[in-house]
Amino acid sequence: MKIDKIDSGEVWLVGAGPGDPGLLTLHAVNAIQAADYLVHDELINPDILTLASENCQLIYAGKRGGKPSANQVDISLKLVELARENYKVVRLKGGDPFVFGRGGEEALALYENNIPFKIVPSVTSGVAGPAYAGIPITHREYNSVVSFVTGHHAVDSHDSRVNWHALAQTGGVIVFYMTLNRLNLVARQLLESGAKRSTPVALISNATTRLQTVVETTLAECKSIDPSTIAKPCLIVVGDNVNLRQQLKWFD
Amino acid sequence: MKIDKIDSGEVWLVGAGPGDPGLLTLHAVNAIQAADYLVHDELINPDILTLASENCQLIYAGKRGGKPSANQVDISLKLVELARENYKVVRLKGGDPFVFGRGGEEALALYENNIPFKIVPSVTSGVAGPAYAGIPITHREYNSVVSFVTGHHAVDSHDSRVNWHALAQTGGVIVFYMTLNRLNLVARQLLESGAKRSTPVALISNATTRLQTVVETTLAECKSIDPSTIAKPCLIVVGDNVNLRQQLKWFD
Repeated sequence: MKIDKIDSGEVWLVGAGPGDPGLLTLHAVNAIQAADYLVHDELINPDILTLASENCQLIYAGKRGGKPSANQVDISLKLVELARENYKVVRLKGGDPFVFGRGGEEALALYENNIPFKIVPSVTSGVAGPAYAGIPITHREYNSVVSFVTGHHAVDSHDSRVNWHALAQTGGVIVFYMTLNRLNLVARQLLESGAKRSTPVALISNATTRLQTVVETTLAECKSIDPSTIAKPCLIVVGDNVNLRQQLKWFD
Repeated sequence: MKIDKIDSGEVWLVGAGPGDPGLLTLHAVNAIQAADYLVHDELINPDILTLASENCQLIYAGKRGGKPSANQVDISLKLVELARENYKVVRLKGGDPFVFGRGGEEALALYENNIPFKIVPSVTSGVAGPAYAGIPITHREYNSVVSFVTGHHAVDSHDSRVNWHALAQTGGVIVFYMTLNRLNLVARQLLESGAKRSTPVALISNATTRLQTVVETTLAECKSIDPSTIAKPCLIVVGDNVNLRQQLKWFD
């Protein structure tokens, strides 16, 4: 089984997955092991960073969701600079680069600077977190649609890009990334858009890691939850499928 | 880095990912290598099956989307039977077990029969196929929502579970799995629900494999495409993000 190798002067935008190192892909492992430079996010499991070779330089490019990310341009420029110096550069991102990971922006910067690059997709937390919690985000008897949403700069601003009415009416499961701070608003918006008060909700913190915790509630009851009491990062999973958890718990 | 091992008498429902063996997770590789029995779908890359040990028995449990799947119960019963005989059983599924993969049904059957089981999530083709085609399914400037939909038994039946109007109004990217046969209907439904005629569409066949091909079109032009001329399996990706492909192609 042949796995592509990263070349000198290339940048690979690599998804580190949702947290559990066992969910790394073979492409990711190979790239990390071969990298001269590893430019990594804050939320990468330390076990994953230990895969890097002894000579690999680690560069921390952490950004916390919610804070202004003025340094996105700096990160992209650093990747270009290292590639031009002919290093093997791995940009290791928490989760998947293209699922609310801003990988598109970094890829465009590399393209514009004629740097050869690849994207290594990963398991995304919106699938794996619920799975580890015993929640199939699709189930034949329940839903034909699952939507991933980021509430980051989309929920409480006036120019919200999220059409709540449409989202509430898809009839499927909705998984919110990086939206915990706006939990109360999310629940209110969905309820005002016609979602049932009894719709089950799961708050999944530290998805797929040994620290994963799950809080089960309903849309109506969300308003009594103080988001600051819930560990981050946290997914908000909304939909009837959450009820399958009682039978399918397997992580604990 | 410690990776859990499958025990005798356990069944692991393992996602084989979208096709490229390099997108297998470490959990998947370890489980396949340790399995006594590998009960696998039709669409698994042969390179992945060669990871099984010499003594491993391969059981083919293929089902093609669209055909009646009367044998789902038989598959579940076979898993229960093998686990009771104290084998290490891996149920290897194309894609992710819980993203339109019917893993929930198999997991429930195992639960009901007191068989210990685990779910190993994988990279899903709806993320990775577009990524390999240079399409970030989310992009900060474009969308805050991405929806995965299966058209399987949902599109042209009278009791359709897909709310087309809601889907067309989410303002995000929509990725359809196993829906190629209904391409014309999908496009018509979205157009009748208010989607722009010029909305870009990508048809991605054999996602992430060496055979991957991409056809670019628009919702309005879909009606002139004969689905039987497009290779399966095929994802239908709908949304403005498809236009980024011209800059981000990296697979070719």
